[in-house]
Amino acid sequence: MDVILHDLCGADPARRFSPYCWRVRMALAHKGVPHEALPWRFTDKAAIADAGTDKVPVLRHAGRAVHESWAVLEYLEDHWPGAPSLFGGEGGRALARFVNAWSDSVMVPGVARLVVSDIPALLAPEDAAYFTRSREKRFGRPLAEVTADRATAVEAFRRDLHPLRMVLRERPWLSGPTAGAADYIAFGPLQWGRCVSAFPLLEAGDPVHAWRGRLLDAFGGLARNSPAEDLT
Amino acid sequence: MDVILHDLCGADPARRFSPYCWRVRMALAHKGVPHEALPWRFTDKAAIADAGTDKVPVLRHAGRAVHESWAVLEYLEDHWPGAPSLFGGEGGRALARFVNAWSDSVMVPGVARLVVSDIPALLAPEDAAYFTRSREKRFGRPLAEVTADRATAVEAFRRDLHPLRMVLRERPWLSGPTAGAADYIAFGPLQWGRCVSAFPLLEAGDPVHAWRGRLLDAFGGLARNSPAEDLT
Repeated sequence: MDVILHDLCGADPARRFSPYCWRVRMALAHKGVPHEALPWRFTDKAAIADAGTDKVPVLRHAGRAVHESWAVLEYLEDHWPGAPSLFGGEGGRALARFVNAWSDSVMVPGVARLVVSDIPALLAPEDAAYFTRSREKRFGRPLAEVTADRATAVEAFRRDLHPLRMVLRERPWLSGPTAGAADYIAFGPLQWGRCVSAFPLLEAGDPVHAWRGRLLDAFGGLARNSPAEDLT
Repeated sequence: MDVILHDLCGADPARRFSPYCWRVRMALAHKGVPHEALPWRFTDKAAIADAGTDKVPVLRHAGRAVHESWAVLEYLEDHWPGAPSLFGGEGGRALARFVNAWSDSVMVPGVARLVVSDIPALLAPEDAAYFTRSREKRFGRPLAEVTADRATAVEAFRRDLHPLRMVLRERPWLSGPTAGAADYIAFGPLQWGRCVSAFPLLEAGDPVHAWRGRLLDAFGGLARNSPAEDLT
């Protein structure tokens, strides 16, 4: 296969859950780029060391190894210019960077704080130990404590999604008449959450929920058919 | 003049402060559209009633009256296609709508909560009474109470600007190689704040502060030369 993606997985190699890898998988599908999404685990640092990183996604193509999801999206746009655009032009590329910043700084920590304690049980033992140790250090407390109040904390998370909701109340996609990079960028954290936790991040009836459903169904149900916990 | 903008003002007709009107004024300058920005006061409802609204901005051109700042930006892009683009293509137009939603739902209430009590003193008596009554109803308490803790509340506001900061740390504008609609959309609430209140919304050294400075200087200092209270 000409294109390889190192894609985070759990103990079950079919359990793919990284928010950043999901951005790339949706973008690869959008571009119609044939590829192999190889399972990669948190402690497989050696498999990607040559790419100069210890995190996925890493995309391999034509002897190059591109890491960091935003860099991979730009790489795909630039190297498959004849395939459907991810950005819809240079103005769209520039503002997708803002959506990326918003997703990384509002959505990712928002989802983490609601589901992080459910992740270790899905990981291989060595990965679970690594994950728990590194995340408890980051949060400064046991993961079970981080999510203990999630039944109420989810309200603030849903409020923080309001800018997304405002747009999706009036149109089906963020990116224009069809889905694009900005949609996949915002979808990644929600797909992460539903793949690792049965805790429902979204309410039925929320335009964000309906949009997530459209993205789950896109590309023949690529995201919907991946093993998940929250099936709402 | 072929193009007229009804532009919110204070007791001094030169005091222009609406976040939504500032978006349009910057966009008119970007497009190089000759126009007259007529002073309009909160209680001048009759002057714009024919436009089917009781709020500015209202843009008059070729017998039409367009209201709501987003609609005006689209109108300018579509009716002056030969002038520099505000959106940089259709992808940029679509995502500028997200920036607009984020600015309206995060920045505007964030600024309001820090400066609203300073506004009545700048208004003509009739407008001040209208403004105080309507805003106290909205906040459910006296305006002085809303801003009483602003010395500490500003920290949360500055944190909420983080997505903007992430982008502006790495590039000078949101919209691409030059400023565009998304920049003006996010600038509007900050310009509103500095025009009505000496309370400093931003810290020197913040990339958002430096970006605001570049926009204040744009178009011959259009925004910098307008009467303001916060000169930091």
